[in-house]
Amino acid sequence: MAATGLTREQSFKAFDGYQYVYNHESETVGCKMKFGVYVPQKAEKEKVPLLIFLSGLTCTEQNFITKSGVQRLASKYGFIVANPDTSPRGCKIEGDSENWDFGEGAGYYVDATENPWSKNYRMFSYVNDEFYQLIIKNFNVDVNRIGIFGHSMGGHGALISYFKRPGQYKSVSAFAPITNPSKVEWGIKAFTKFFGQDELLWKQYDATELVASYHGPKTRAPILIDQGSDDNFRNKYLFPERLIDAAKKVSFPIECREHEGYDHSYYFIMTFIEDHFKYHKEEFEHIK
Amino acid sequence: MAATGLTREQSFKAFDGYQYVYNHESETVGCKMKFGVYVPQKAEKEKVPLLIFLSGLTCTEQNFITKSGVQRLASKYGFIVANPDTSPRGCKIEGDSENWDFGEGAGYYVDATENPWSKNYRMFSYVNDEFYQLIIKNFNVDVNRIGIFGHSMGGHGALISYFKRPGQYKSVSAFAPITNPSKVEWGIKAFTKFFGQDELLWKQYDATELVASYHGPKTRAPILIDQGSDDNFRNKYLFPERLIDAAKKVSFPIECREHEGYDHSYYFIMTFIEDHFKYHKEEFEHIK
Repeated sequence: MAATGLTREQSFKAFDGYQYVYNHESETVGCKMKFGVYVPQKAEKEKVPLLIFLSGLTCTEQNFITKSGVQRLASKYGFIVANPDTSPRGCKIEGDSENWDFGEGAGYYVDATENPWSKNYRMFSYVNDEFYQLIIKNFNVDVNRIGIFGHSMGGHGALISYFKRPGQYKSVSAFAPITNPSKVEWGIKAFTKFFGQDELLWKQYDATELVASYHGPKTRAPILIDQGSDDNFRNKYLFPERLIDAAKKVSFPIECREHEGYDHSYYFIMTFIEDHFKYHKEEFEHIK
Repeated sequence: MAATGLTREQSFKAFDGYQYVYNHESETVGCKMKFGVYVPQKAEKEKVPLLIFLSGLTCTEQNFITKSGVQRLASKYGFIVANPDTSPRGCKIEGDSENWDFGEGAGYYVDATENPWSKNYRMFSYVNDEFYQLIIKNFNVDVNRIGIFGHSMGGHGALISYFKRPGQYKSVSAFAPITNPSKVEWGIKAFTKFFGQDELLWKQYDATELVASYHGPKTRAPILIDQGSDDNFRNKYLFPERLIDAAKKVSFPIECREHEGYDHSYYFIMTFIEDHFKYHKEEFEHIK
């Protein structure tokens, strides 16, 4: 399939398909953006489901594709898996590179409203509009079977994308997500810069707030969340119980599995990622 | 199990076991050496087989453990998998850091005889004596079921270890190995420095030469070699056909599988590594 507006940077045969890295000029965030996309052999002949994976703080498009073992599963289950970068790059905004938890590599998947961030830091629109359409346009995607998942900051990104865009994603899951960013140090720091002091804006990008007012279609099985018990970030930044409690109040089904001994790393992700494929596959199979 | 002389640097729960990184002071190479070792849960209760993996040029102990997906398989098959570094580090020998294909990250798994390399660049003895014994001593290894495999320079390392130490390894396999280093640019460059001009010494570390005079026990199934057809190094540095031809002459069984479209990367390794586990398992199962 010809890729329009895309420049291929890397191509690796992996299992029965190809792991690609492309770049493109993004109108939404105003810079060149890279992404990874695995295309299984099955997609040469027919439209296949798409999973979008959002990565955590400090990641580029490389971490997930080199460390998670996703290619074996994307090949086995016959899914296209696309993963964008975690922020705009090279915009040279003062303060975008001083901290590992804010700015480059740390866009938090929101659309900033405050200067100087509002011009480029529009990762919510980038992921859910431009990137989403770009993948559909350029790869053999079954548009009725698109799910989203992510890790840590990207778990937050996946959850808010699901809740803010009812029906756009048929399924959502997360590894160790930041569930309540407007109430934890990482999120407060970033949201103050991106949105100023208006905490109403903050809440529009907070899964624990969003689930309470969500009225869109629900997934068939509970949303799958995996959390390691030895994750150093768990009790300072992640708080899965806050999302679960908020979801319970509105009878929204979430399954949070706590895994003894696992941490926040890709070793944790590689261990449980096949269960996420099974969850999304199960959701997709029940779509008419 | 208490680790003697080992300092644990990293510990990650992955699948049912743990991926560790340790360091230790090596007498053989005269510096601190790191290594990775995956220990499946099964090894808590009983002695299990050991696979030693040798990495290619530029690698540390990290590349294999982060990129190959080995943990899933080590857990599934119940093997300990240990992978040493590719050279001594920090010895500050003039010329050890100027080229990516010689010196640090490029020890070629040989015991150098020439100054200034002969003091530290003794990776053959390190891998096959000190490291081998260290793993047996500190982990729950079934000493009758030890195999070795590797990639590129590490494929060369695995093959020469097998041929030079008859019976020490019950099985050997390789991904895109350098099969005939004494006749290719990488090897000539390294061996000239390590051994001087005496090409008889070079041949003692060349699998294509070694197989011709090997008289030790043979593996039950043919030695498994995987090679990608789109590997840029194939026709300049690797030449699997030279090893195969030499092996044929002495009726030594080698199966070299050429895989259309795959390159030299870890995407190639991750695709075929399970077949290597199956091969080694099969060999181990026939040991009485």
